[in-house]
Amino acid sequence: MATIAGGIDMGDVFLVIFKVIKVFASKVMSGLNVLFVAGTHGNEVNAPWVFDQWNSHPNLIQTYGLNLSTIIGNPIAREKGKRYIDRDLNRSFSERLFLSSNDYEVGRAKELLDLYGPNGRRPCQIVIDFHSTTSCMGCCLVVYGRRFADLALASLLQSRLGLPIYLYEGDASQQGFLVESWPCGLVIEIGPVPQGLLHHNIVRKTLTSLQFCIEEIHKAQADIINLPDKILVHRHLKSMDFPRDSLGNQRAFVHPKLQDKDWLPISYGDPLFQTFDGHDITFIEGSDSELIIPVFINEAAYIEKGIAMSLTLKESWDFKKKWYIHLKEILSRNYE
Amino acid sequence: MATIAGGIDMGDVFLVIFKVIKVFASKVMSGLNVLFVAGTHGNEVNAPWVFDQWNSHPNLIQTYGLNLSTIIGNPIAREKGKRYIDRDLNRSFSERLFLSSNDYEVGRAKELLDLYGPNGRRPCQIVIDFHSTTSCMGCCLVVYGRRFADLALASLLQSRLGLPIYLYEGDASQQGFLVESWPCGLVIEIGPVPQGLLHHNIVRKTLTSLQFCIEEIHKAQADIINLPDKILVHRHLKSMDFPRDSLGNQRAFVHPKLQDKDWLPISYGDPLFQTFDGHDITFIEGSDSELIIPVFINEAAYIEKGIAMSLTLKESWDFKKKWYIHLKEILSRNYE
Repeated sequence: MATIAGGIDMGDVFLVIFKVIKVFASKVMSGLNVLFVAGTHGNEVNAPWVFDQWNSHPNLIQTYGLNLSTIIGNPIAREKGKRYIDRDLNRSFSERLFLSSNDYEVGRAKELLDLYGPNGRRPCQIVIDFHSTTSCMGCCLVVYGRRFADLALASLLQSRLGLPIYLYEGDASQQGFLVESWPCGLVIEIGPVPQGLLHHNIVRKTLTSLQFCIEEIHKAQADIINLPDKILVHRHLKSMDFPRDSLGNQRAFVHPKLQDKDWLPISYGDPLFQTFDGHDITFIEGSDSELIIPVFINEAAYIEKGIAMSLTLKESWDFKKKWYIHLKEILSRNYE
Repeated sequence: MATIAGGIDMGDVFLVIFKVIKVFASKVMSGLNVLFVAGTHGNEVNAPWVFDQWNSHPNLIQTYGLNLSTIIGNPIAREKGKRYIDRDLNRSFSERLFLSSNDYEVGRAKELLDLYGPNGRRPCQIVIDFHSTTSCMGCCLVVYGRRFADLALASLLQSRLGLPIYLYEGDASQQGFLVESWPCGLVIEIGPVPQGLLHHNIVRKTLTSLQFCIEEIHKAQADIINLPDKILVHRHLKSMDFPRDSLGNQRAFVHPKLQDKDWLPISYGDPLFQTFDGHDITFIEGSDSELIIPVFINEAAYIEKGIAMSLTLKESWDFKKKWYIHLKEILSRNYE
């Protein structure tokens, strides 16, 4: 241990200083740790750029005394301008993979949990994971499953900003999402923007949604929030592939009448795809009583997953007080 | 050599059949070989898809008796959904690289020349190389340097379709373009479209420009063309990088007023970029007498090249008869 002449132990001095800072911080900081992730997919470049700028200009974001951490999900993929190195990081948060896979992203998932997971070195109660899409989705929230705290936080954000909520659940082929590994977590998706491209519109939307997230979390913690009566969700029904030939090649593109029409209802007989020779492929599902709403139409990254779009059903649910109680319980956990 | 009972030499039989076919073909085919390339960049997926569909539905394109070949420039990169494997194929057609580099794309460039180059197995007089861009360029022609035949063909296409011409020349940092290795060659660029995404608008524009290319080449060969008086070119002046901080990181994005404004003139004082904290970076070049026109604004693939946009000067040139004579000479070369 380092000492200086006169026998004062410098380690003790630092310990005292650290304790003083901690006592002072506890007066102004909330004890609530929120993790913001960007670049979970390395070729989605807008949110990582916003985080870099935020780190250089911390006064541009009002933090309301919350302990905020930012991290780039997949820094190696970001450096290479690729979605991922070995596999999709946002399908890599799985105990099964942790035990069986040596893929870079599985190691990175463990690393992120070691750093910021509920049992990590700097545990966070809430995670917000920023993504971008080539689909014309605007700014929306993605909720995975029906965890009460997630539904509560999504409701508060929808109530404040009017953002649509895509409720993704019950698809066995898609598992291991990042936000599910934290007590409460949402994805914010912003589009349309090509991969690898910084765009003023996406930067602005990322910044706005980031700021409102912080505000709403702060207000929930401080109990100065008006709870909504209802929540509107677009519940995932299934994903739909492109029409393919016998060799598996894509034999049609998204129909001109459907391209960029995310969030707008379709019904029986509406065109979905068009072939090279001008033949329309129409929607032959649905009924008069149900309006099906496609989202993630023609997302470039989903082509390899065999997804041309996902179909949802719009539902209005009563906001449940117990959701909020659960969120509050998580917010009050002492993670300092 | 294979024979059948009775001593007839099957090799001779095939030779006779081949000669008969060749004589017949010479009556209906033109002797003019045109190569169409798509997927020179593996993540530009629209033209390759159009070529695949064309191969499955040959009657959708009128060929006017020309010998047309299609090829995917970078099939491995296409399969992987990447722009390239080791280096940009469209900067790999260089004798210097052929002698010094083992990169996949350099080998592929040699392979393409062995197949379809002027001294290749099936030599082509003309090459048309289809690209897509994330920039809002519409459909345009790119001419590399001032080869007479290129200028003639570009003039004919501009006269027919009104396409803008981007004349790229004199930039020592960018060399080895594919089309320069053929006696006559043009690039057709179509955008905006994200990388990796099939879009009805780009498919349609690719198909239309492909069909008109074939028609104009046919008409030039048959001398049934009206030569234009003028050609409008956007002559490349220089490329411009994003503003960067001392570490080389991009510190501003394309200004909202400039994004998607390719082909529209800018002048002194107009905004080019905007920083995170809302500071505008303006254009401090140009003069009252010259209008500078930016193109390839915010092309995702050029970020790694340090190009935020390229600046051009719009010029009107007299169409020169000698350009057309040169094109005609190339068209008349016997490559059968």
